[in-house]
Amino acid sequence: MIGRLNHVAIVVPDLAAASGTYRDTLGARVSAPVDLPAHGVTTVFVELPNTKIELLHPLGADSPIAKFLEKNPSGGIHHICYEVEDILAARDRLKAQGMRVLGDGEPKIGAHDRPVLFLHPKDLFGTLVELEQA
Amino acid sequence: MIGRLNHVAIVVPDLAAASGTYRDTLGARVSAPVDLPAHGVTTVFVELPNTKIELLHPLGADSPIAKFLEKNPSGGIHHICYEVEDILAARDRLKAQGMRVLGDGEPKIGAHDRPVLFLHPKDLFGTLVELEQA
Repeated sequence: MIGRLNHVAIVVPDLAAASGTYRDTLGARVSAPVDLPAHGVTTVFVELPNTKIELLHPLGADSPIAKFLEKNPSGGIHHICYEVEDILAARDRLKAQGMRVLGDGEPKIGAHDRPVLFLHPKDLFGTLVELEQA
Repeated sequence: MIGRLNHVAIVVPDLAAASGTYRDTLGARVSAPVDLPAHGVTTVFVELPNTKIELLHPLGADSPIAKFLEKNPSGGIHHICYEVEDILAARDRLKAQGMRVLGDGEPKIGAHDRPVLFLHPKDLFGTLVELEQA
């Protein structure tokens, strides 16, 4: 069911510094920062040949990643995202097998303008997993 | 400099359970467990179309991931691995820019029989990064 690894999301305390390190020190292709007010994050995409890294920083007062940064002030890996062909079919199959979907269980439009869902980390060995419709 | 994302490594408290979830619930292709005594881990590879997930469990008394599992009893994402063309050139470039290489700074032979190094998570926003020679 799960397909490609769409991205690894890393929360960072300083987006400009992290962008600079990925670009200048690690020599990767790095996008300009993009504010996503609907998601409460500012994002920088690091383009690798086979997938991407999303560097995330909180945006606004109610950012869903603010608490993560409080607990991990140096930053850290926040979630990984797998692609699925049909997000509603994937959700229903996972729920039928006892997996918990976060929020109200309905897909939201994610950072790439595609429907996404998050699965409960307790059901996946401490890993927050996002599913994105491919 | 960095190339493909070679893998995401996830430490899990129960390798059989995690393999089962990835295979049966998430529908992924999952390898048999492989003991790597030299690394102090048992590994299961989850093959995705563009990269892989490595499920890790401590092996033996001196496993380098035992403490991580103590701190994160449900498990969690442990590190990400980027490929580089020339690991010695990469190391020297990174050290010249102030990045710390873990251990004695010399590449070890990793889980895929290729030279690997680990970079200090404090220099990479709380993310433990492995470099593997492609």
